[in-house]
Amino acid sequence: MTRRNALNVAVVGATGAVGSAMLRVLEERRFPIKRLVPLASARSRGKRLHFHGQSYRVEPLSAQAFDGIDLALFSAGALRSLEFAPAAARRGAVVVDNSSAFRMDPDVPLVVPEVNPQALASHNGIIANPNCSTIILVMALKPLHDAAHLRRVVVTTFQSVSGAGAKAMYQLITETTALVQRLRLTRGGDVARKLVGFHPHVQGRATRVLPAQIAWNIIPQIGSFADEDYTQEEWKMVHETRRILSEPTLPVVATCVRVPVLIGHAESVVVECARAISPAQARELLRKAPGLRVVDDPPRGKYPLPIDVASRDEVFVGRIRRDPSTANGLALWVVGDNLRKGAATNAVQIAELIAHKGA
Amino acid sequence: MTRRNALNVAVVGATGAVGSAMLRVLEERRFPIKRLVPLASARSRGKRLHFHGQSYRVEPLSAQAFDGIDLALFSAGALRSLEFAPAAARRGAVVVDNSSAFRMDPDVPLVVPEVNPQALASHNGIIANPNCSTIILVMALKPLHDAAHLRRVVVTTFQSVSGAGAKAMYQLITETTALVQRLRLTRGGDVARKLVGFHPHVQGRATRVLPAQIAWNIIPQIGSFADEDYTQEEWKMVHETRRILSEPTLPVVATCVRVPVLIGHAESVVVECARAISPAQARELLRKAPGLRVVDDPPRGKYPLPIDVASRDEVFVGRIRRDPSTANGLALWVVGDNLRKGAATNAVQIAELIAHKGA
Repeated sequence: MTRRNALNVAVVGATGAVGSAMLRVLEERRFPIKRLVPLASARSRGKRLHFHGQSYRVEPLSAQAFDGIDLALFSAGALRSLEFAPAAARRGAVVVDNSSAFRMDPDVPLVVPEVNPQALASHNGIIANPNCSTIILVMALKPLHDAAHLRRVVVTTFQSVSGAGAKAMYQLITETTALVQRLRLTRGGDVARKLVGFHPHVQGRATRVLPAQIAWNIIPQIGSFADEDYTQEEWKMVHETRRILSEPTLPVVATCVRVPVLIGHAESVVVECARAISPAQARELLRKAPGLRVVDDPPRGKYPLPIDVASRDEVFVGRIRRDPSTANGLALWVVGDNLRKGAATNAVQIAELIAHKGA
Repeated sequence: MTRRNALNVAVVGATGAVGSAMLRVLEERRFPIKRLVPLASARSRGKRLHFHGQSYRVEPLSAQAFDGIDLALFSAGALRSLEFAPAAARRGAVVVDNSSAFRMDPDVPLVVPEVNPQALASHNGIIANPNCSTIILVMALKPLHDAAHLRRVVVTTFQSVSGAGAKAMYQLITETTALVQRLRLTRGGDVARKLVGFHPHVQGRATRVLPAQIAWNIIPQIGSFADEDYTQEEWKMVHETRRILSEPTLPVVATCVRVPVLIGHAESVVVECARAISPAQARELLRKAPGLRVVDDPPRGKYPLPIDVASRDEVFVGRIRRDPSTANGLALWVVGDNLRKGAATNAVQIAELIAHKGA
């Protein structure tokens, strides 16, 4: 890459939920692009997409597709990253990989630009973008950690279906449509009364990609089950948070739950600190931190909501309270757009740092 | 009341979400009823409802309506309970009150029959039914507390709209219908792709009773804000849990969140104990506890879901894990039907204990 010059950029998984967001974020931030190469699996062969007003044909993913590419943004799953990211790096591209493939590889930096940009100082051509819930969490944790030193983190997530990709969005939409059709809603009436005792099960599994019905339901499983009956998603939050904060033994316990929301992950976070920190101090620290917005005005009923943060690049924090159940405890409510700061925006920010350094 | 004899029973708020559930639970459990008197506010004047195949006219709520009543089940809000429960008790009725009016009154027992039936030993004619989320929580906590002594409880709730009454169910249903209509869904197509970037806001506030749109959204506020920016619901969980477990200083921190589910509250619970307790031991204790069902088989993807527990009387526990972030810690996922065990079933169980004692 040459400093200040426009780059040849490949977006891998360009037709997916995160890939589409990457293209929009590249446009919005006017990332300097000489040539754009949208790549996807054979399933998307022949599809076209638009970028800065021009139409592009989606090309099939192959090692040769990275010839001449300076920057490759990957969001096509861990298996494809394992197969093609090293090939892209060998051809001279810098890879920013949104999959879990390399996140715990000690030779691959795991970066949130506002939190640990120094991790970018050295890399071997591949940089890992953290898990969406982890990015949103560490954005809020970092200022508190710097000020009061975290001793323990307890987090429960409310994760939108787009975190599982466009197909899971489709599942929520089609299930919701089926429920409404089954209700045969006419015009009002005492529907709720009729519904006391109604079982809102959607029949059929044709469009199911999540482990269960998600419309009018919540599912306490994200990813497969792994060690000690925690899910992969829960372990990612533990291990990636430790790595990004450079605290390899920080005690973290996570419970990750899918909720019927299209875009936007929320997290109920309780932290214990080594030093006392008041809600007012925390509010002030978080307000000054880059990339964070504090929305915390209980008398006016103001706190962050998923429907309000969708399409926003910042991470939003509210419900900041003293946790009376422990010394130096705080409770927080953190919400972010999982497709933007939780994935695409963070990846493009990493790319901007690399381009700026001429790395 | 006379032992073993059928009673004259009033149900106050008989047309509401919890009142309707009370009538169904009384039917199902064949509670011995001589005369049923369904009461409600003037708004429900003239409505009729069915009980054991007979049609009843809903009577207006008044002090005189309790003449001759042996048992009064109240679920019509704290203001109506404050006004009419003492009047009913003075007329000789035993009141089981589902509102928050008397829950922290030291002269009024606060009872979950499986947890603290001994609290019923003395009362002055009024017994309080705890908050729905609290009942579901303490059902799971009690066996763990007996075995390993709780030191701290951290809970985040996922509460269904029926916890805010039939009108909130109506809000979720009408908002969902409006979203589906706005999508103008035809037959399939790549809807999810079109929706990346779509803002699922419902226009208009006509049917809004919750603080914000709930369809495809979640709201971290249940009840009004109170001390230290915690909501009333969060303080209820703290204070009622302490009272029911007879642990007046037990450290508890709660974050209560409304989710777009019709019926069924779920809770992500992390506990710290004085003594070590393994997930296997916890599973065994919970399995043997009355009123609890353990659904916890990660390899088969089995855990409790709101849509599965709706209309069930038990409280369901799954996702039982060692919490590696603290000594003697456990993480749990607890789900119950907020209208049944969280309200109506618990109230009728209390009534059964009273009737049995001839209290």
